[in-house]
Amino acid sequence: MGERYSHTQTAAANAGAPTDAGALTVTEVRLTPILIADPPLLNTQGVHQPFTPRLIIEVVTADGTVGVGETYGDSRYLELAAPLGKALPGHAVSDLNGLFTLAEQVCGDPDDVSDSVDVGGLRGVQTADKLRLSVISGFEVACLDALGKILGLPVHTLLGGKVRDTVEYSAYLFYRWAHHPGADTPRDDWGAALDPAGVVAQARRFADTYGFASFKLKGGVFPPDEEIAAVRALAEEFPGRPLRLDPNGAWSVETSLRVAAELGDILEYLEDPASTTARMAEVAAGTEVPLATNMCVTTFPEIREAFATGAVQVVLSDHHYWGGLRNTRELAAICRTFGVGLSMHSNTHLGISLAAMTHVAATVPNLDYACDSHYPWQTDDVITSRHVFTDGRLTVSDAPGLGVELDRDALKVLHQRWLDDDGTMRDRDDAAAMRVADPGWQTPSVPRW
Amino acid sequence: MGERYSHTQTAAANAGAPTDAGALTVTEVRLTPILIADPPLLNTQGVHQPFTPRLIIEVVTADGTVGVGETYGDSRYLELAAPLGKALPGHAVSDLNGLFTLAEQVCGDPDDVSDSVDVGGLRGVQTADKLRLSVISGFEVACLDALGKILGLPVHTLLGGKVRDTVEYSAYLFYRWAHHPGADTPRDDWGAALDPAGVVAQARRFADTYGFASFKLKGGVFPPDEEIAAVRALAEEFPGRPLRLDPNGAWSVETSLRVAAELGDILEYLEDPASTTARMAEVAAGTEVPLATNMCVTTFPEIREAFATGAVQVVLSDHHYWGGLRNTRELAAICRTFGVGLSMHSNTHLGISLAAMTHVAATVPNLDYACDSHYPWQTDDVITSRHVFTDGRLTVSDAPGLGVELDRDALKVLHQRWLDDDGTMRDRDDAAAMRVADPGWQTPSVPRW
Ligand SMILES: [Mg+2]
Ligand SMILES: [Mg+2]
Repeated sequence: MGERYSHTQTAAANAGAPTDAGALTVTEVRLTPILIADPPLLNTQGVHQPFTPRLIIEVVTADGTVGVGETYGDSRYLELAAPLGKALPGHAVSDLNGLFTLAEQVCGDPDDVSDSVDVGGLRGVQTADKLRLSVISGFEVACLDALGKILGLPVHTLLGGKVRDTVEYSAYLFYRWAHHPGADTPRDDWGAALDPAGVVAQARRFADTYGFASFKLKGGVFPPDEEIAAVRALAEEFPGRPLRLDPNGAWSVETSLRVAAELGDILEYLEDPASTTARMAEVAAGTEVPLATNMCVTTFPEIREAFATGAVQVVLSDHHYWGGLRNTRELAAICRTFGVGLSMHSNTHLGISLAAMTHVAATVPNLDYACDSHYPWQTDDVITSRHVFTDGRLTVSDAPGLGVELDRDALKVLHQRWLDDDGTMRDRDDAAAMRVADPGWQTPSVPRW
Repeated sequence: MGERYSHTQTAAANAGAPTDAGALTVTEVRLTPILIADPPLLNTQGVHQPFTPRLIIEVVTADGTVGVGETYGDSRYLELAAPLGKALPGHAVSDLNGLFTLAEQVCGDPDDVSDSVDVGGLRGVQTADKLRLSVISGFEVACLDALGKILGLPVHTLLGGKVRDTVEYSAYLFYRWAHHPGADTPRDDWGAALDPAGVVAQARRFADTYGFASFKLKGGVFPPDEEIAAVRALAEEFPGRPLRLDPNGAWSVETSLRVAAELGDILEYLEDPASTTARMAEVAAGTEVPLATNMCVTTFPEIREAFATGAVQVVLSDHHYWGGLRNTRELAAICRTFGVGLSMHSNTHLGISLAAMTHVAATVPNLDYACDSHYPWQTDDVITSRHVFTDGRLTVSDAPGLGVELDRDALKVLHQRWLDDDGTMRDRDDAAAMRVADPGWQTPSVPRW
């Protein structure tokens, strides 16, 4: 470059319409616990209950803008959300770093926190810090939605801009019963899937309806040989498609290695074959199959040991666990730096969280795999227009904020369900749900096989 | 929480003034290389030249907003900036993730890139990736400045919000001559500092003028015992104040350990005592004094080895090296996760970069130490109102964008200086500057002591 570029005297005057800083101030927070229908999906700890709790968070700003967020709705999360919701008014929706400080100040430790692998074990460790981050994530998304609406910018732009226009998702296959036991439980027409043929039929319907090109089977339900057979059947039905198996830590190191050896030629990755980072590291040392996790690395403090020991090759981020969309981007940066793959995990959630997940996924350069999503299993929603998977993908919204609209009638109905519940569904308990069908059921100890 | 919070039917209508997406589009980029005066500050490789190159980047958007950024101005950086400046029009200033993709597409590798420790060694490795990131950083800051001006939001808000209202800086002490050799070189009234008394006098003036409470001495200039004596003299003059010594990797492991042992009681940290991560790890293993670096960890790929071997306890981020303010936040997240301290490094820069540094520093929760700044040594600037340190701190601007205004007259003068230069100052070369006084000078091989 030999000389300076043009040096036109252009006024730095702002021809745009600067934001009134006052408009960003939160004036009200509305917290609405709801119960949503959930099919009888099986996992190693039991079965999904007919209804599962979620919390819908609305953040209202001085100019009347409403931002929406969603997170877990079990009582321990509600305990933390209440004081944060009370403390937030007066703060700006743009003060996202401050959310963490505020939460640390006002949220005490929730009751019933243990580090043991109980039903919460499917969500990894249950420390007070992690529960607080899961609550913050719902507030962060609501603030980002409000901020985006006020600024006229989509959430992905608030995260630095999308690097892709669509986000790919994977079909999330479950062993399942046709129906929940008992009357007054939600029904669907998917039928049972309890063997390889049932799993393949489910996968075929997912592929035909939504165009998913990769498949994840939730395992840990039947003895490993049956699940190996199911994955083999998937490979025969869908040759060359990426396949994943996730027994939620149910296996011993030895069993994990055996499954890895038997399925190594067709698995994209093996997800949480064994519980604990130490066991995962042992498995990783004995196989070429990449190990993924959303159980042993679900918080920042768990990263060091897992990465140092090579225990995981793919972290499946759940933006709720990690404290929101911006923290998810930081996790992505850490994975990039340490040569670890990244994809995203999905719990039982609604359209607000799926929108949030899609926005952040669109901004992460190193999103190495199709994201998981439970969403097709959910028949309830709190948004007016459900997300539609096409070719297994969601198009990233360019509308201001998340690009979803709250369906207040639906919210009211789902909240009434929560109010009417006698308490049995207000905390997810897959073992309790299993005991309805099998009174002697106890959460299996790990390793189960 | 027994029940739902208020369920007022508030319209989600946006009372704010949504941004016209078109206003965010870049219509013009102006790149202005300049030469700025620099005092005869000594380091282990030589002495600062009388003038040093910087590049000022202006990004103009469709609505006439001008965002400003600043980065290194040596020719290898200009080579990369030119194609990026040409490619940016048409892109949105909010598309910050896309900047990296765009730069990878359009910037070839610069000439004269080597991984060896030459004069660029003061800046750590000189890979093509790193040089490109240094260039991107200037564009990113200009885009953030423009975006902030358009939205009416300060840059710290675009980074998630400040967590502190002021940012603390440290006095940056140098051994120095009173004047550069030769006529027509810039002068100042600081006088020489070539022994403990000179260093203390310089520190006293810094403390009295700017209120700095901590002190960093650039070492590697004199034999270690002389520098030990200077740090001891500082400790006597300023008892209890944090002190740092940075010989830019000039010492052997043995010498590093000896200095650490002799100064361990008064050093806050020892900065880059030895060159290479491996040697730093050896030093770290033998001392309790924390080791800081802005030489062996200046890029994301260098982190793994350094953290795994415990080679560094504090990373001094230079947002230019790391690719901008958002990447600096990601580095901060990595340091937080791995229990490594964070502070910030300063090269020879002007008020735009200092503003940028202050904004990002304000948003990082784990900013563990006062940041370094060369700024008081710079008499030139390209902003209309110079930053003023009070009690060793800068107040974080809440004005839209960076909160600085380009001084076009000053820019013109400094650019003319660059145009008029015969080429000797267009690439920083501390060894060449030293040869003006000492014709036999060669860049010392490492370790020097
Ligand atoms: Mg899983
Ligand atoms: Mg240094």
